[in-house]
Amino acid sequence: MSTAPDVIRCAYAEFVVSDLRASRAFYVDVLGLVVTHEDADTIHLRAFEEYLHHSLVLRRGPVPALAVLGYRVRTPADLDLAEAYYRELGVRVRRREPGATLGIGEAVRVEDPLGFPIEFFHEAVHVERFTQRYDTHGAGAISRLDHFNLNTPDVPAARKYYEGLGFRVSEDIQDSDGTVYAAWMFRKPTVHDVALTGGDGPRLHHIAFATHERHQILHICDHLGALRQSDMIERGPGRHGVSNAFYLYLRDPDGHRIEIYTHDYYTGDPDNPVITWDVHDNQRRDWWGNAVVPSWYTEASPVLDLDGAPRPLVARTDAREMDVTIGADGFSYTRSTEFKLGEQV
Amino acid sequence: MSTAPDVIRCAYAEFVVSDLRASRAFYVDVLGLVVTHEDADTIHLRAFEEYLHHSLVLRRGPVPALAVLGYRVRTPADLDLAEAYYRELGVRVRRREPGATLGIGEAVRVEDPLGFPIEFFHEAVHVERFTQRYDTHGAGAISRLDHFNLNTPDVPAARKYYEGLGFRVSEDIQDSDGTVYAAWMFRKPTVHDVALTGGDGPRLHHIAFATHERHQILHICDHLGALRQSDMIERGPGRHGVSNAFYLYLRDPDGHRIEIYTHDYYTGDPDNPVITWDVHDNQRRDWWGNAVVPSWYTEASPVLDLDGAPRPLVARTDAREMDVTIGADGFSYTRSTEFKLGEQV
Amino acid sequence: MSTAPDVIRCAYAEFVVSDLRASRAFYVDVLGLVVTHEDADTIHLRAFEEYLHHSLVLRRGPVPALAVLGYRVRTPADLDLAEAYYRELGVRVRRREPGATLGIGEAVRVEDPLGFPIEFFHEAVHVERFTQRYDTHGAGAISRLDHFNLNTPDVPAARKYYEGLGFRVSEDIQDSDGTVYAAWMFRKPTVHDVALTGGDGPRLHHIAFATHERHQILHICDHLGALRQSDMIERGPGRHGVSNAFYLYLRDPDGHRIEIYTHDYYTGDPDNPVITWDVHDNQRRDWWGNAVVPSWYTEASPVLDLDGAPRPLVARTDAREMDVTIGADGFSYTRSTEFKLGEQV
Amino acid sequence: MSTAPDVIRCAYAEFVVSDLRASRAFYVDVLGLVVTHEDADTIHLRAFEEYLHHSLVLRRGPVPALAVLGYRVRTPADLDLAEAYYRELGVRVRRREPGATLGIGEAVRVEDPLGFPIEFFHEAVHVERFTQRYDTHGAGAISRLDHFNLNTPDVPAARKYYEGLGFRVSEDIQDSDGTVYAAWMFRKPTVHDVALTGGDGPRLHHIAFATHERHQILHICDHLGALRQSDMIERGPGRHGVSNAFYLYLRDPDGHRIEIYTHDYYTGDPDNPVITWDVHDNQRRDWWGNAVVPSWYTEASPVLDLDGAPRPLVARTDAREMDVTIGADGFSYTRSTEFKLGEQV
Repeated sequence: MSTAPDVIRCAYAEFVVSDLRASRAFYVDVLGLVVTHEDADTIHLRAFEEYLHHSLVLRRGPVPALAVLGYRVRTPADLDLAEAYYRELGVRVRRREPGATLGIGEAVRVEDPLGFPIEFFHEAVHVERFTQRYDTHGAGAISRLDHFNLNTPDVPAARKYYEGLGFRVSEDIQDSDGTVYAAWMFRKPTVHDVALTGGDGPRLHHIAFATHERHQILHICDHLGALRQSDMIERGPGRHGVSNAFYLYLRDPDGHRIEIYTHDYYTGDPDNPVITWDVHDNQRRDWWGNAVVPSWYTEASPVLDLDGAPRPLVARTDAREMDVTIGADGFSYTRSTEFKLGEQV
Repeated sequence: MSTAPDVIRCAYAEFVVSDLRASRAFYVDVLGLVVTHEDADTIHLRAFEEYLHHSLVLRRGPVPALAVLGYRVRTPADLDLAEAYYRELGVRVRRREPGATLGIGEAVRVEDPLGFPIEFFHEAVHVERFTQRYDTHGAGAISRLDHFNLNTPDVPAARKYYEGLGFRVSEDIQDSDGTVYAAWMFRKPTVHDVALTGGDGPRLHHIAFATHERHQILHICDHLGALRQSDMIERGPGRHGVSNAFYLYLRDPDGHRIEIYTHDYYTGDPDNPVITWDVHDNQRRDWWGNAVVPSWYTEASPVLDLDGAPRPLVARTDAREMDVTIGADGFSYTRSTEFKLGEQV
Repeated sequence: MSTAPDVIRCAYAEFVVSDLRASRAFYVDVLGLVVTHEDADTIHLRAFEEYLHHSLVLRRGPVPALAVLGYRVRTPADLDLAEAYYRELGVRVRRREPGATLGIGEAVRVEDPLGFPIEFFHEAVHVERFTQRYDTHGAGAISRLDHFNLNTPDVPAARKYYEGLGFRVSEDIQDSDGTVYAAWMFRKPTVHDVALTGGDGPRLHHIAFATHERHQILHICDHLGALRQSDMIERGPGRHGVSNAFYLYLRDPDGHRIEIYTHDYYTGDPDNPVITWDVHDNQRRDWWGNAVVPSWYTEASPVLDLDGAPRPLVARTDAREMDVTIGADGFSYTRSTEFKLGEQV
Repeated sequence: MSTAPDVIRCAYAEFVVSDLRASRAFYVDVLGLVVTHEDADTIHLRAFEEYLHHSLVLRRGPVPALAVLGYRVRTPADLDLAEAYYRELGVRVRRREPGATLGIGEAVRVEDPLGFPIEFFHEAVHVERFTQRYDTHGAGAISRLDHFNLNTPDVPAARKYYEGLGFRVSEDIQDSDGTVYAAWMFRKPTVHDVALTGGDGPRLHHIAFATHERHQILHICDHLGALRQSDMIERGPGRHGVSNAFYLYLRDPDGHRIEIYTHDYYTGDPDNPVITWDVHDNQRRDWWGNAVVPSWYTEASPVLDLDGAPRPLVARTDAREMDVTIGADGFSYTRSTEFKLGEQV
């Protein structure tokens, strides 16, 4: 098998959005992302500590969807490795000229084996890093893109594919029968660059941005309340069991899910301990035991293929986390010796 | 009518608890309250900035209940005023000798017209104020008692009674028909010393303690998660619409509800604007629109009469907030032009 | 002696500033105060939780100075009491028509016995309270005016005068000879509405605004750094020993000193314990022992008389705090058994 | 030249301390580090998110000093690389058996070309990671070791040596003549694993631990105040210009300097921009312009050689940062067009 490209980290996402103005109000006016570039059809955004051209592109289009997820690779030569690697995997591969995406150099786009549109790139335009531009930081200042979270039907298969790309697992959720419900995998030494969440796929569950402190996340909630847009808050804020991160899930005007996230931990040593959570542990998704709303389990963004057409979904056949934890057939517990029926959570 | 006693503020509560050791683990080990005194039957507790003997008494007893709520009055002479005032109201009144409650001077106890056991006192033993004893402050340090919240069936009547005692309203919840669901009333210049919440009563909905910052409240959640007692978290954390306070509701081992609370505002000017919230406004109880759990609406602590017997309940006959906002017959909205049926909240 | 007016709290200050645009950049763009009104000569400002017309007025003028300090009184009738009270004290008194200061009703201005221009008012225009307008709150959001701090040569005399107005002492700084260096006095139940600081007077040492949390104060520092105006930071941030408040001292473009302050404590009970600090205790001014910069001791704003002329200064004849704690003749200690010479602090 | 070992990150320090009980009071009771092991002569400590046996060893000994700095390498084979690499450099090298330091596997110790005692190891005993043991986290909870800071006379030479080990520079301080005063270098993707600070060397300037949020650092100050040990606070808290981190410098009972640090930024991309600060920029060391205390520039811990004898010092011959910025011969500025003489800073 060919050598895999050396991925540094998750780097950017491109969303198709139906109303650029509504999206701008959310991403710029509420989340405070910095506009690197905007025109009639696109907005290129970055967070305060980022110096590459963008970590999020919003592109106007007819059907809200994920257009691409970008991973940065270590060297220009990794693009050739990526091309060979994916051709050997037998999936569609396209070489892109520098600037095909504004601000991004030469790139390789693929439809990966999980069905996601993935771009590998190394070169990107540098822009001002606003780390110390506190005059522009709002009360909910966001530092950087942190991770992607993907719905895919077969988590063990997806994990194996990502391990082939050099990602390692930090945490996962299983049951006593060995069914895997989700796995968190990383290249940069945080809990994840990508999470694989069992579900009909390929769909994008969410992308996540990091803040330094929790009050910045709380402010985003307060801000949405002031705008009478609290219904954009889907879940949280709370503390994850998995990753230990403090979290908030929002839905943008098209329903794309955005997580704001802080307080995970360093994973960079080669023997970083893997944590496996029992799917019935009621503190796995929320350390405080607050219930996960059903939409969080069931809804996600469709993804496009390299021609811009929506990918058909493959249904999950393994047990679904919501089914085994909530409702008449599910159960969960706060202490391992006590069980609560799913419909009582 | 007699002159009402000059109440300074809400001052202490006494709970009957079934297992003093379990209660101690919660109030001392988790909440970090300071033990002023403890013996086989009672624990007297205070928060870090309090210098009176206690703001919470836990007393071992057969049936968990509220034994008494204490209001501090400005002078010793206010005790005579209190006695005369309540005798004129025709309710049971008892004079108590100094020390009848450990640490409390002479007192007047009454069964107030709402059915609650209330004590008025002025003198109390002074103990060390731990404001700057940071060596003893945990990550969830609590500063002081903030307020009581009472279930009472007829909120306008209860409000009128408390106005007679010199309390003023800061905020309330009504509907367009004029039904009043709750009112917040104060003597000290915060949003409240007492909240009147429509429901079968007399029952104690909760007592609340204040912290300086929100991270202290978040730590209490994290701490309970670490102890695998996250099921003591009933609701929150969140931001109230009413009061603007950041909140968390816990249930102690006997089900007594404790709120941890911060960030309300100054109300001490005589023309402090009263805020009236529409019961259908989905941000009134949680500024972020997170759902109120049903138990928060329905469960509360019974209260004892002056002989220690549980008071019978009077049912609320006005509309109930939960019914008009949640479920098939209710509705709420995030923006006033948009309605969401109750079962969709 | 006449009855003193019933003062509710410190309410507003008016500063003469030399460059309204520079002042606006500081108070509006950095501190985030809300503009109630502005014209060519004045800016009227309030903090996010205030509903009276203003808590700070900036007025363009030739010589930077304090023009007036406003105290709010409980009723309109208190104005007559104020007039009689100060006439009996034999100082200059002026009655002012409603609107003489924009947004303020009828008022009584006096040159008080300490030499300060003081206004008593009850009526004021109500404006929107921005408590929950989180869309407008910056990362350094300020909630409300908290207190005034005055330089006056004879602190015991000044204390006696303020006790006549019904203020009570919460804390003070003395030495073992009984020399009083400063006293903190309040009407609203916080540590102070006014602090009396020994020094040549009458001069305004500073006015202070409150935030909810400490990170809001830290952001103001970061913001000034980003603007390359860190030299506006005179002292702090730090934790006061006196008051326990977390603090920051800034100097506005004319040198007027502004404190940003949070975390003091409730003082509203009649027996609130008075704390006396030893002037040689190195943690009295900064709980962490960080040195007080000399300018903080020596510089202050001149004050105007009722005709707008600068008041001459009366020199302090008692020992000066800086002299007894810093330099060759002073000393301080961290632990009471250890002494450090003043020049080593 | 031989291949350098693959260093993952800075991993642990060992201090010789004169009074183990006094050191324990500081590191365990105040800083809250977790005790992995202790006996009559040593205490092995770790922070809450660390799972290797220790990140700090305190060893009782006659002369307070740095005994060793440990770097973790990626594989056991890197130990052979390290041995060969340093033998080729001509410095003393010692192979150590597993357990020669409790909890550490086989190791290679060297006296590096800068004169520091350095240990390379891969294997270490795993212990419980207390990330979510919030029941044990105090208000000043520390997450992990972050970096070492070394005094060395010739910063460019030291930088070159560390570049040979694969470290990259994130930031440095220079003047317009090209004199280098300090450089920050990393392996893990933070601002640094090691900082090289110009001065007489080899000496240890400090080691630093990271927290998640700033309030945890502020609490450590409050805690020391409560213990009347505020004189252990040497500098800060403040915001660094370099690294953007929020910082605090403490001195342990033997004078070893400990930094508590948070809020730096991700540096893991290969083109991470290097920031060069002008030594005269008054915001380089403190973004808020607060003065650096002289002891911070001049004092540091001696280091031991492989036989445990103190290393002689080599004096810095380049200009010293304190001299060029403070005092009669120095100057600094807040804005680049304005200069302030050194003695006025």
